[in-house]
Amino acid sequence: MLVDPAVFRPNPRRKIYAAVLEAALQAVSPDTCVRQNMERSHRYVRSGGVIYDLEEIGHIHVIGGGKATAAMARAVEDILEERVDRGLVVVKDGYRVPTRRVEVREAGHPIPDERSVAAAQAILSIAHDAAADDLVIVLISGGGSALLTYPAGDITLEDMQRTTDLLLRSGATINEINAVRKHCSRIKGGQLARHIAPARALGLILSDVIGNPLDVIASGPLAPDPTTFQDAWAVLERYHLVPRIPARVRAHLQAGLEGRIPETPKPGDPIFDRVHMVIVGDNARAAEAAERKAQELGYNTHILSTFVEGEAREVARVVAGLGKEVVRYNRPLPAPACLILGGETTVTVRGEGKGGRNQELALSAAVALDGWDRVTVVALGTDGTDGPTDAAGGMVDGRTLARGRAAGLDVNRYLAENNAYPYLAATQDLLITGPTLTNVNDLICVFVEER
Amino acid sequence: MLVDPAVFRPNPRRKIYAAVLEAALQAVSPDTCVRQNMERSHRYVRSGGVIYDLEEIGHIHVIGGGKATAAMARAVEDILEERVDRGLVVVKDGYRVPTRRVEVREAGHPIPDERSVAAAQAILSIAHDAAADDLVIVLISGGGSALLTYPAGDITLEDMQRTTDLLLRSGATINEINAVRKHCSRIKGGQLARHIAPARALGLILSDVIGNPLDVIASGPLAPDPTTFQDAWAVLERYHLVPRIPARVRAHLQAGLEGRIPETPKPGDPIFDRVHMVIVGDNARAAEAAERKAQELGYNTHILSTFVEGEAREVARVVAGLGKEVVRYNRPLPAPACLILGGETTVTVRGEGKGGRNQELALSAAVALDGWDRVTVVALGTDGTDGPTDAAGGMVDGRTLARGRAAGLDVNRYLAENNAYPYLAATQDLLITGPTLTNVNDLICVFVEER
Repeated sequence: MLVDPAVFRPNPRRKIYAAVLEAALQAVSPDTCVRQNMERSHRYVRSGGVIYDLEEIGHIHVIGGGKATAAMARAVEDILEERVDRGLVVVKDGYRVPTRRVEVREAGHPIPDERSVAAAQAILSIAHDAAADDLVIVLISGGGSALLTYPAGDITLEDMQRTTDLLLRSGATINEINAVRKHCSRIKGGQLARHIAPARALGLILSDVIGNPLDVIASGPLAPDPTTFQDAWAVLERYHLVPRIPARVRAHLQAGLEGRIPETPKPGDPIFDRVHMVIVGDNARAAEAAERKAQELGYNTHILSTFVEGEAREVARVVAGLGKEVVRYNRPLPAPACLILGGETTVTVRGEGKGGRNQELALSAAVALDGWDRVTVVALGTDGTDGPTDAAGGMVDGRTLARGRAAGLDVNRYLAENNAYPYLAATQDLLITGPTLTNVNDLICVFVEER
Repeated sequence: MLVDPAVFRPNPRRKIYAAVLEAALQAVSPDTCVRQNMERSHRYVRSGGVIYDLEEIGHIHVIGGGKATAAMARAVEDILEERVDRGLVVVKDGYRVPTRRVEVREAGHPIPDERSVAAAQAILSIAHDAAADDLVIVLISGGGSALLTYPAGDITLEDMQRTTDLLLRSGATINEINAVRKHCSRIKGGQLARHIAPARALGLILSDVIGNPLDVIASGPLAPDPTTFQDAWAVLERYHLVPRIPARVRAHLQAGLEGRIPETPKPGDPIFDRVHMVIVGDNARAAEAAERKAQELGYNTHILSTFVEGEAREVARVVAGLGKEVVRYNRPLPAPACLILGGETTVTVRGEGKGGRNQELALSAAVALDGWDRVTVVALGTDGTDGPTDAAGGMVDGRTLARGRAAGLDVNRYLAENNAYPYLAATQDLLITGPTLTNVNDLICVFVEER
């Protein structure tokens, strides 16, 4: 049992809801994801529709970065056994998992440190040394962008940090920020693929980005980069950052503009001919596993969206409205119903409280559902870590506010302070799973019981 | 054709979407709502499951207040013909419709004026004069609370205005505000029912409140009031308003506390024995008509919720996420799909632009859907008036932002200024229907076409 049983006290049905969540988490564990997307018979390896003939392959190297990649590497070792030659993956401190042949290093996240650079350097040298008949398996998961940091030219880590901070505060979009970052890196924006060529590359990707855009996940080390040095420069000009960015970043981008440094590889570049990428796990896979389990347990189900974004407390009101519709009109499905949504919400922090986006979503849903006894809303961060807390999210129902009132708590004050954690702790609605070693964003489930 | 055809230019399919909206508006027109909920054979009248034997009924009086009530009165006249004796309804300036026997008066809305009080006085006198064998038909629709204003005791309109303002700024909930307002009125909180008794009362209600709570719509003139003078006083104390409210309001509430003024009628009070209320139109009815029309036109449909609330621009992102799921995974329904939601969003005004909640929702959805060519999102205020504009909402698609960029418009600036109207006007995405004389909140439709 993954879920801390304290949350079962208000309502024994919550054990059933927890089973649905656990099925979802199980389906996106690094191990399950790799095993479901890589099969080996004695001679052949199949992954995502591509078949590799091991008799035609020289060495197999395993490289990568991201929180889940040690666990993914172990799964690859289990499948390919003696055929894995060597390798190196970088994980966040504390995410190490024992492996046999693939070296695991830890580094800083979300702020990259010198260990990231050293590891990235070692990884590039493995990529570079791979022969034309070798296969390089590249493991990528959430956190990979920071963990595989290797600034281009003489740009320093501090330069990159300052550039990123300036961009974040400028109002630039995430695509604009990425155009700059890819052009300041030796790995991002398809450049890892250039180092791997002419060897074959198989990217196994556990996606933590809504919609699985291959050029965005971990900054797309194996994906063609549609952006150019000119685009990157235009972003700096648009937000009046040219005079403010560090001199080494400015000089590097200018060298790129003047053609003294090669562009990132573009769509159609032949280096991508032998690159194959497989999304081995994502939010949809988690949602589908939740759906199967809920059906097995007797619920009518719909997956409504795996693209949910928005301010957590406002998304909560829409989600609550879905539950009310089932109660009142048995739409879009009759009770017992389980409506599943996925994505990633945001919190505009106004207070100094303790919480996370899933806890805030859950508590706001509880406000909207006060008195709606048949409805339970669960909001879960699939990495098991919601905000800077030990909770993964919240599990609330139409009685949550009554429990809060009985404890003398004013929910509006807690919400105003972004302080969902202690409120949910007091109402026994805190969802605690511990770190899951994976991340496919968030899941929201609306359960509605029959009258 | 109700919808201004300018919006059809970007895409001819929009005529089909407009037909869906028009079916929804048609289904909640005051005339349709009354006719679908009141039938007369020669001797009997049936409404909402109750049958009245006209041979046992003396006079039939028609009273009421709300924007739609003149049009509703005319429908009642058409059905009951010579049996309507007399009556009086109050509408907002400009909402008059020709009637035969029922007098129509206009008054101020949303700020009530002396005409409201004079009309309410006349309506109470009709109610009061009704004999035990009479039937009083009470027509209620959005705006009824302001249009049927009649302060209790010697409280003035200005006193009520000031009290309401103080409450609105105090952070009190809508239920708390209503507890005070009902105890300062001669009509609200079931008190109209007391005036009508011992005559029979039939309330025909066109609901503009999510979930159709009978004690909230138009402040519940025919519904038992669960709140007391003590509750009202406690609200004032909770928000430290006792010393700040006008002296006449304070004195009236104190008189109530001391039992010198009767309480509002409570659940179980025998005056409600002969009161029958029928929701003749609401958001669900509009959503269901939209669904039927969309099905007829070949779309797979779901009504997902008629309880949607939240900040318009955030709700938009969830709505966009529903469309993306259909495009990517054909869930919860395969394309061509029409997902329908209803409710009422809010806008936290930050800028000085021109717009309304539906226009802002539409424009925000357009941002989230940039490039998703198969998706169209429509947000419509069913009263035809979205914010202080002549538009009813917006109809946007995956090309809206491209049209805006071609016109040199920066969508982020327009959104920051709450200035959706001119943007949508420039991109030909403004939905204009003209006032509809009805109001059942807002409809949101997500259309997704096949590839």
